[in-house]
Amino acid sequence: MVEVRVPATSANMGPGFDCLGVAVNMYNRFYVEEIEEGLVFEGCEDKFKNEDNLTYVAMKRCFEKMGYKPAGLRIRIESDIPVCRGLGSSAACVVGGVICANELAGRVLNDQELLDLAVEVEGHPDNINPAFCGGMTVSISEGKKVVYNNVRVKEGIKFCALIPNFTLSTEEARAVLPKNIDYKQGIFNVGRTALLISALNNGDFHLIKYACKDKLHEDYRAQLIENFYSIKEECERLNCLGVFLSGAGPTIMVMLKEEDQEFCKNIQGFLENLQSKWEVKELNIDDKGTVVNNLEQLTQCG
Amino acid sequence: MVEVRVPATSANMGPGFDCLGVAVNMYNRFYVEEIEEGLVFEGCEDKFKNEDNLTYVAMKRCFEKMGYKPAGLRIRIESDIPVCRGLGSSAACVVGGVICANELAGRVLNDQELLDLAVEVEGHPDNINPAFCGGMTVSISEGKKVVYNNVRVKEGIKFCALIPNFTLSTEEARAVLPKNIDYKQGIFNVGRTALLISALNNGDFHLIKYACKDKLHEDYRAQLIENFYSIKEECERLNCLGVFLSGAGPTIMVMLKEEDQEFCKNIQGFLENLQSKWEVKELNIDDKGTVVNNLEQLTQCG
Repeated sequence: MVEVRVPATSANMGPGFDCLGVAVNMYNRFYVEEIEEGLVFEGCEDKFKNEDNLTYVAMKRCFEKMGYKPAGLRIRIESDIPVCRGLGSSAACVVGGVICANELAGRVLNDQELLDLAVEVEGHPDNINPAFCGGMTVSISEGKKVVYNNVRVKEGIKFCALIPNFTLSTEEARAVLPKNIDYKQGIFNVGRTALLISALNNGDFHLIKYACKDKLHEDYRAQLIENFYSIKEECERLNCLGVFLSGAGPTIMVMLKEEDQEFCKNIQGFLENLQSKWEVKELNIDDKGTVVNNLEQLTQCG
Repeated sequence: MVEVRVPATSANMGPGFDCLGVAVNMYNRFYVEEIEEGLVFEGCEDKFKNEDNLTYVAMKRCFEKMGYKPAGLRIRIESDIPVCRGLGSSAACVVGGVICANELAGRVLNDQELLDLAVEVEGHPDNINPAFCGGMTVSISEGKKVVYNNVRVKEGIKFCALIPNFTLSTEEARAVLPKNIDYKQGIFNVGRTALLISALNNGDFHLIKYACKDKLHEDYRAQLIENFYSIKEECERLNCLGVFLSGAGPTIMVMLKEEDQEFCKNIQGFLENLQSKWEVKELNIDDKGTVVNNLEQLTQCG
């Protein structure tokens, strides 16, 4: 049996729309084995127990690419990553699927091929790359090629995810984005992206409050997320390092100093007075990315 | 007598429009002394020997801020930085002016005050900051405050400036920029800026060719610079790491591997066949920034 663990990811970090993502220590686990016949799902909700299951879709694509035909499959999925919350649940399922398929077939594809395939199936390299490689990554598309790099982050920060009990589909969140923007909006995000990466790199975390600002997607999506601005303001009042909409939302991600012991309980108190339910989850950067069979790490990502 | 040396700077590095700048080892030197009366200029062209001289303007602003009234002034300027070429000549004159004034008055202002004043006088923090601090810096404006950070660049790169014998004023180069842009243009630069900083930081210089691309100013300004695209193409053909318009142009800046011994002579051959004259100048990053009195470095920039 193949066992694969894939981390949750938070993309669109601050000003880094469509490029910056980070893996965090919340996981989906996939247990897959070849059986004599049929397709058996375990662990997931009934509505996901069919051929449209994203993990299965990704596996099938990978099997096709390798020319491998399994007799039958048993797929068990243990998901800690909530669905449609902007925490890379789809990316985790796709990465889990392609890696499981490749393991079952005897490691036919190399890391780059697996990564390319996962991006092809899922479409969000800013989630796929950190899910695969761990840490924080920058990803860009250059024609059909995805180019990425691991961003060096000095030790000393952690995250806090504020996860609501309502969902937001990526499609809906994409639909509110504009076709054109003010020239200044573009410049705003370019400068802050540069500052964010440099500050993380140097460990100048006091600069994150200036850098972690966005004019490319948050204001458009705020209307889809109940109490977005009041929560953000409260986070800032509680002296977080930075706040941003995780992926396409609705999860709000907060950057904190590692030694901050107050924020999570204080924001919990604030969120309890809101109409929707919000879960508060302290998270650390996951540096391993996807691991196979009892935590054997994939070869080093570049 | 006060002696101050200020480096040239190349701003708008690649996708880092209006935020990324780097100091290089080409200098203006300012020698200033208080005399009994009058205002004497030496070293510069006659057209700059008057009260509109930018170095003098900056000195005057600094004297006013400090409440210091010099009797008379002798100002000698030795300029290696060509004027109106996108190499931070104005920034160097302003930084030189405020530092000279502060030295004459007995170091009344601190580094932050000097930096803020220079930005106020000149208006381009992406040139002022590296001129002042050395190295590569990212600068953003947050309201009236300028926030900046030194970008850590792994050793192993150098630059080559292609400097034409024609000038381009910053005003003219600003005037061709649009008010609105396509959403995708903004995203393009955001991703590449993130990639550029991360790649420089990690020493992954092979990624610069993907990262060092811009959709926010180069294409608009290319029309103002004779042969811009053909020169850029030739640079790429000669295997440079990246090419970008330095500041508002017309200088074209090339990033090279430190060990590259071929590029400069090869591009020289190409440029000799063009109508305008182009000077080819190999440059290294200047890490010291502005130095006072026989190369005493200013206190560490943050």
